Amino acid sequence: MTRRFSGMWPALVTPFGADGKPALDVVEKLVDLFAKQGLDGLYVTGSTGQWPLLTVEERQGIVERCVKASAGRIPIMAHIGAVATDDAVTLAKHAAKVGADAVSTVAPIYYPHSADVVFEHYRRIGAASELPLFVYHIELAQKLSVGAKEYTERILSLPNIAGMKITSGDLYLFGLIHSFAGDRLQLFSGADEVMCQAVLSGSIGAIGTFYNVFGPACRRAREAMVAGQVEKARTFMLAFQQVIAKVIASGSIWSFFRAAMRVKYSLDIGMPRAPLGTLDKPWDDAEIAKLIATVDEVL
Amino acid sequence: MTRRFSGMWPALVTPFGADGKPALDVVEKLVDLFAKQGLDGLYVTGSTGQWPLLTVEERQGIVERCVKASAGRIPIMAHIGAVATDDAVTLAKHAAKVGADAVSTVAPIYYPHSADVVFEHYRRIGAASELPLFVYHIELAQKLSVGAKEYTERILSLPNIAGMKITSGDLYLFGLIHSFAGDRLQLFSGADEVMCQAVLSGSIGAIGTFYNVFGPACRRAREAMVAGQVEKARTFMLAFQQVIAKVIASGSIWSFFRAAMRVKYSLDIGMPRAPLGTLDKPWDDAEIAKLIATVDEVL
Amino acid sequence: MTRRFSGMWPALVTPFGADGKPALDVVEKLVDLFAKQGLDGLYVTGSTGQWPLLTVEERQGIVERCVKASAGRIPIMAHIGAVATDDAVTLAKHAAKVGADAVSTVAPIYYPHSADVVFEHYRRIGAASELPLFVYHIELAQKLSVGAKEYTERILSLPNIAGMKITSGDLYLFGLIHSFAGDRLQLFSGADEVMCQAVLSGSIGAIGTFYNVFGPACRRAREAMVAGQVEKARTFMLAFQQVIAKVIASGSIWSFFRAAMRVKYSLDIGMPRAPLGTLDKPWDDAEIAKLIATVDEVL
Amino acid sequence: MTRRFSGMWPALVTPFGADGKPALDVVEKLVDLFAKQGLDGLYVTGSTGQWPLLTVEERQGIVERCVKASAGRIPIMAHIGAVATDDAVTLAKHAAKVGADAVSTVAPIYYPHSADVVFEHYRRIGAASELPLFVYHIELAQKLSVGAKEYTERILSLPNIAGMKITSGDLYLFGLIHSFAGDRLQLFSGADEVMCQAVLSGSIGAIGTFYNVFGPACRRAREAMVAGQVEKARTFMLAFQQVIAKVIASGSIWSFFRAAMRVKYSLDIGMPRAPLGTLDKPWDDAEIAKLIATVDEVL
Repeated sequence: MTRRFSGMWPALVTPFGADGKPALDVVEKLVDLFAKQGLDGLYVTGSTGQWPLLTVEERQGIVERCVKASAGRIPIMAHIGAVATDDAVTLAKHAAKVGADAVSTVAPIYYPHSADVVFEHYRRIGAASELPLFVYHIELAQKLSVGAKEYTERILSLPNIAGMKITSGDLYLFGLIHSFAGDRLQLFSGADEVMCQAVLSGSIGAIGTFYNVFGPACRRAREAMVAGQVEKARTFMLAFQQVIAKVIASGSIWSFFRAAMRVKYSLDIGMPRAPLGTLDKPWDDAEIAKLIATVDEVL
Repeated sequence: MTRRFSGMWPALVTPFGADGKPALDVVEKLVDLFAKQGLDGLYVTGSTGQWPLLTVEERQGIVERCVKASAGRIPIMAHIGAVATDDAVTLAKHAAKVGADAVSTVAPIYYPHSADVVFEHYRRIGAASELPLFVYHIELAQKLSVGAKEYTERILSLPNIAGMKITSGDLYLFGLIHSFAGDRLQLFSGADEVMCQAVLSGSIGAIGTFYNVFGPACRRAREAMVAGQVEKARTFMLAFQQVIAKVIASGSIWSFFRAAMRVKYSLDIGMPRAPLGTLDKPWDDAEIAKLIATVDEVL
Repeated sequence: MTRRFSGMWPALVTPFGADGKPALDVVEKLVDLFAKQGLDGLYVTGSTGQWPLLTVEERQGIVERCVKASAGRIPIMAHIGAVATDDAVTLAKHAAKVGADAVSTVAPIYYPHSADVVFEHYRRIGAASELPLFVYHIELAQKLSVGAKEYTERILSLPNIAGMKITSGDLYLFGLIHSFAGDRLQLFSGADEVMCQAVLSGSIGAIGTFYNVFGPACRRAREAMVAGQVEKARTFMLAFQQVIAKVIASGSIWSFFRAAMRVKYSLDIGMPRAPLGTLDKPWDDAEIAKLIATVDEVL
Repeated sequence: MTRRFSGMWPALVTPFGADGKPALDVVEKLVDLFAKQGLDGLYVTGSTGQWPLLTVEERQGIVERCVKASAGRIPIMAHIGAVATDDAVTLAKHAAKVGADAVSTVAPIYYPHSADVVFEHYRRIGAASELPLFVYHIELAQKLSVGAKEYTERILSLPNIAGMKITSGDLYLFGLIHSFAGDRLQLFSGADEVMCQAVLSGSIGAIGTFYNVFGPACRRAREAMVAGQVEKARTFMLAFQQVIAKVIASGSIWSFFRAAMRVKYSLDIGMPRAPLGTLDKPWDDAEIAKLIATVDEVL
């Protein structure tokens, strides 16, 4: 593997049009925005991108448009995880064909599986293309009932493995995986709320939902942390955590992102597919502006 | 609501052909088999039927074939739950149109939701057709953080609500829901392993995977229980639990059902879509025959 | 082992006097009451008896008084579990010396332990006396990460092992343990709310808190169940579960037992040691009488 | 409150003599050692100190000896949490009388309690003396089912409240509590394995078991972190996490501490009370020396 992935990556929201279909023109504008902001990459059709509510064809359309809109300016990692292994394989091949830079997958969902079946699922996905593979981790080691070392070794044995997106606040496990894998795994923090803390456990970057709105500020904060400006990083994280907590406590998370993207970037990302956001209340523009300023003006 | 649902209902396995597609001719044979066995109903395209790995069209095709094959001999309850509310609504309308007898739905999966969003999802599904609605319960009351009484009342307020499929070993909660709802909810036990125990908590019937293989024996055991033959029911449940435990401990659950349906009924249901059953080992015919006999010959 | 244990056993409340000390005279009256009621045994200084808030000496005093008051009329099982293994051993030896009929122990509390350490703790306790040992089970097999069979075999290998008190609503695991152990383990159900359901999983009796108030009614219900009067057992369990749910939902559990023992039996058991019952509200006598009647008059 | 608490605090191990009693002469040597090492305080008779296996009198003896041995050189925080509220109150009064600098308490153990009861328990303990109170947090907010803000406000309303010992890897909740409380709560990190990460969430210091062995190295690492030497802190934490993982995975944690204190400081702390350490295997001196060097030589 020669290509390196790192830095600040929004987990791209999937914008929807009035017709309930993915709004590919807005996808294009989002990619352009994040490329111009100098962010380090885009994570496409992940959980934030509502993959479980999209058809295989819709997902392919979005990835293709992202790659085209980027035109090499910002790397595209396509989340190609699916309930059925074959769908994930199809999506991985497509991502490679259209020029995505990497693929990523969640663990199989809904049914419980043994560790062996989970890794066989990953193996087939990794082998489906030559793109670097980033396995998504959500409290998986515990579910699998194996230790951090064995878990890391199994991850490392996957074809085309390049790294992980560790969506967990458990920075002890994060650090153990990093120590076992060293440079062989590029570890992204998927828990926005401890993004700077994860640097101390070996994270090379961060992938997350809130970077759609706060990408540049979070990028500066992460760089301050890496550069040793601990007091700056601390002040930022405390403010950032407060905003995350307010958004989550509101119960209107999806409408927050819609309002914030409109207020800050004049982009309409629409509302997600039901049941997501079904009962979300609208946000007040002034409150949105205040939350945005809270984060953007810390550093 | 006039129609009553009760008794022993297999959660129908979805058979697959060599081409990886649902084998509708085998679906027909299964419906015919269970109708001739005198079972009380069929639960179609549920988790056993692999709904998350089927397209909307495939699910519609299976439900339609079941209704046709039954020709009124055995009632068909179509599980129409889906990740997207709109898909569930589409499936509910279709089920009504083709003549299914009832619809059932799991709670929304993958994303965490508030209780309000879960019930809005249910409400839209219930309102989509005039078919009786059976909500699927999996440890939901806990997740929703409401008491059993409030939970039951919210269930009762849903349009066209007729009952629940309670897939939980918690027979305390089961009994509380029954006491609160009385005749207003027809409660099916979805935990095969405590099927007779659930009678004491107010179950009116049982829906489950193992009834594909053991339907008639389980029906006799349940009737023995209802008739007060407690020692018979006890002896049966202990033997049945042992077989369930052996199948689950094998890690080769899907190939067990494939082998058992072949050995017992000469029907080939194929293997499920990956990752389900990916690493299943084949079963020995003699062992299968022994397990079948263990259950069938108790009573 | 020759002595058999079975039937309906109250987990004796520990009465306290105005001086905050165990009221041994009331202990004596309770034992006399339950013996005269024809109940099958008493489980002493368990969780209901507040063992973690009693000194070793207080526990010894209570057990001794129970044995004396019983005078052979009703068997006494002393819960001798403790945080420190040595305290449990001391209590087991004392129970044997003063003439208790059996000992019982919870798993070690507070610190996490490996399965091996848990069983070494049990082993020392079992070896401390020649009394039959009943190990207390609370979701232990899961914590220990071993299967039901291996777990049962390890239980069976303990010195003087006679049975278990399974305080879990999981009647699948209950049945598996019974199938593996057969007559070698006498299994008591410790989950009052599924007491009759547990008969189908091989329970030989029930030990629980609510039998302090409802012992005779529960004994009749359990016997009805064993005798095949399923409808009676069902009706009783549904009513009993409702009363349990009301008491638990009140948040004033300890004052319920105090009021119920006073209203029904004219016995003052006092209030428990803080923090237990600290904020309990008093119960209305009429409400208590109604709840008591609800259960007592079902059968 | 004028006194400030911060920095690196070992959660003192309780040494035992050959007679199975707390070895007060070794307690004295430990206090002297840590005072001379320039550590910032001592947390006495906590979980590491085996409080649930000690009598009230033994706990008082240890606290008294610590205060005497310190002679003002290093502050003493006495963990006075107990199963019974009255025992905790007695211990708090004693701690004040003998000159401890602060008291700390775990939440009530063994029985489940409502949030109101938990806070009433804390309130009585806080009011028992005029010493600053540090409440111990173990995933408590979740159990209490209240939000971080309400939880923090309730903590702040306790008499003599000065701070918390947050033993959780959840640095999001840690940061939220800090943001809500500001200077009103001095927050110690109780999760050794993310000790430096916690600085970014507002920790003012760290209390933990491993600082018995690695106090000075951990103090240097934490100071490096605060001073902005992020790369140093990262390198240290990764090595420290590896050692913690090795010790925990060994299953012989208590014998590790015994061997390490002997090899490094020539102090014999004996073995804990059973069941703690019951089946611990001895450590190899060379391996112990290597693990110690691994941590001590990072910075």
